[in-house]
Amino acid sequence: MSDKIRIGICGYGNLGKGVELAITKNTDMELVGIFTRRSPEDVKTVTGAGVYSVDVLEEWIDMINVLIMCGGSATDLPKQVPEYARMFNTVDSFDTHAKIPGYFAAVNKAAKESETVSLISVGWDPGMFSYMRALATSILPDVNPYTFWGKGVSQGHSDAIRRIPGVKDARQYTIPVEEAMERVRAGENPALSTREKHTRECFVVAEEGADLEAIELSIKTMPNYFDEYNTTVHFISEEELQANHSGMPHGGSVIACGETGNGNKQVMEYFLKLDSNPEFTGSILVACARATYRMWMNGESGAKTIFDISPALMSPMSQEEMIEHLL
Amino acid sequence: MSDKIRIGICGYGNLGKGVELAITKNTDMELVGIFTRRSPEDVKTVTGAGVYSVDVLEEWIDMINVLIMCGGSATDLPKQVPEYARMFNTVDSFDTHAKIPGYFAAVNKAAKESETVSLISVGWDPGMFSYMRALATSILPDVNPYTFWGKGVSQGHSDAIRRIPGVKDARQYTIPVEEAMERVRAGENPALSTREKHTRECFVVAEEGADLEAIELSIKTMPNYFDEYNTTVHFISEEELQANHSGMPHGGSVIACGETGNGNKQVMEYFLKLDSNPEFTGSILVACARATYRMWMNGESGAKTIFDISPALMSPMSQEEMIEHLL
Repeated sequence: MSDKIRIGICGYGNLGKGVELAITKNTDMELVGIFTRRSPEDVKTVTGAGVYSVDVLEEWIDMINVLIMCGGSATDLPKQVPEYARMFNTVDSFDTHAKIPGYFAAVNKAAKESETVSLISVGWDPGMFSYMRALATSILPDVNPYTFWGKGVSQGHSDAIRRIPGVKDARQYTIPVEEAMERVRAGENPALSTREKHTRECFVVAEEGADLEAIELSIKTMPNYFDEYNTTVHFISEEELQANHSGMPHGGSVIACGETGNGNKQVMEYFLKLDSNPEFTGSILVACARATYRMWMNGESGAKTIFDISPALMSPMSQEEMIEHLL
Repeated sequence: MSDKIRIGICGYGNLGKGVELAITKNTDMELVGIFTRRSPEDVKTVTGAGVYSVDVLEEWIDMINVLIMCGGSATDLPKQVPEYARMFNTVDSFDTHAKIPGYFAAVNKAAKESETVSLISVGWDPGMFSYMRALATSILPDVNPYTFWGKGVSQGHSDAIRRIPGVKDARQYTIPVEEAMERVRAGENPALSTREKHTRECFVVAEEGADLEAIELSIKTMPNYFDEYNTTVHFISEEELQANHSGMPHGGSVIACGETGNGNKQVMEYFLKLDSNPEFTGSILVACARATYRMWMNGESGAKTIFDISPALMSPMSQEEMIEHLL
């Protein structure tokens, strides 16, 4: 067996594909298998990697160093990760913010008992954006970091539109309000309502004969998803949706403006502009898998978050290379 | 004695003052003393902190948890840090890039032997910018991060101008070339010469009767400092220099644009705009002092860099607070 870090992927949607592609860029890793709930023979992988049923994962305990969990946060991860943490080191992108403390506790218990390491809730938000909020508040303890998302496709909001009767397909973009970002960068520390931070733009393919006015009203008044935002709805053809809105771009900014001394403003901003949200998230999960493996090799166990990860744990470079090329 | 982290400051110029101010924002820390090579009675501190001679530092071994080294990189730090690392945990902002490997080795030897921790070369560059270069290359291993500095005052370049005969005072601004930054953000991965990345703007107060043309020529042709840049020179009065150029603003960007999958561009940018360079750098040194103290409490020893520091080590928050408020 090679001395590369051996990775398994559990769940093969857009994120799983992003992880698969990212592994090809990391020469210290190898993908040993993709595990799916579907029939393995029905799954075509991007790189030709082997596909197996999740039911046989247990047999792979000695062959996998880190299992990257690519299921959804709603139902997959809360069930799977506490279970697989008993067998594998894991990395996941659990992002249901309000449920993270309970999730952390459940995963921590399993990983502590089995002496594995489970790194939870990594990606870009939660993940890199959390990292930036932590750095900003470490440097300037009384700073209030603001987070803006977009312009980008929200899968959750797109799905919510698709569930409206008469809607055939839909894509929703979250768009940050530029004026609000400028006020934060200027150090105003403004109180911003949900409506003042982001707008929502929807591209909807309606079924033939559907009541367009009723669909638009359903979208704009939908609780939690749209009612607190200024929302624009465009009805377009299926062809136009495919041609112009089939990508998965996203991004955003963490902006923190604090003061030191006698009113000196200090602005920090971390900005992402991503052509492919799942491929970027997958790339982060792979770097985090390296960190997870190294923590486990160092004798650590239990649930971890991005806050526990130093650049040295994530980087493919040696300490000497990092000092020479990056410091 | 309180259970706060007890900090000493060694060297009291602009950076030492920035550290002194930053400590007041960190309720888990206390400043026990400022140590200077000058006569302590001649030094007035910003916060009224006590001032002592560096000659008595040895007597403070049991009173100081971390000594923040605020001397210069040219001569102070290479001499002081290997010496004081034998008595104290230290943090410094050594920034002579080519000499870092040798410096690391010297400090590491002292700190290993005395079982202290010395965190070297922190600030914003080297420091936070190094951190961002490391994160970018961890996520996308084949990415090439670009660093731009400014607009900001370079002390080194200002000093170099002041040494020219006929110059009474001077201030030099380093300015990034916006067009070059845009090309990097667009993913062109351009080959940029020194001249194409930054320009230099100089505000010079000449002595009465000085040969202005000769001064301007001396500046523009000065090897290493100016000859490889497009440089502008303005002669102004002493009053104007005091009125408009007495601040110490700085900043810059680390921009990394890589690709994933089938040509999907992924842009990361970390941007700083600082009204006060020494106060911001001081704030980073203080957060790093917390990390240094915690590493030492964990039983670690030797020289460390920013790459060894996780957000959890730097943050004044508990793990639970970080998960609730920042993740």
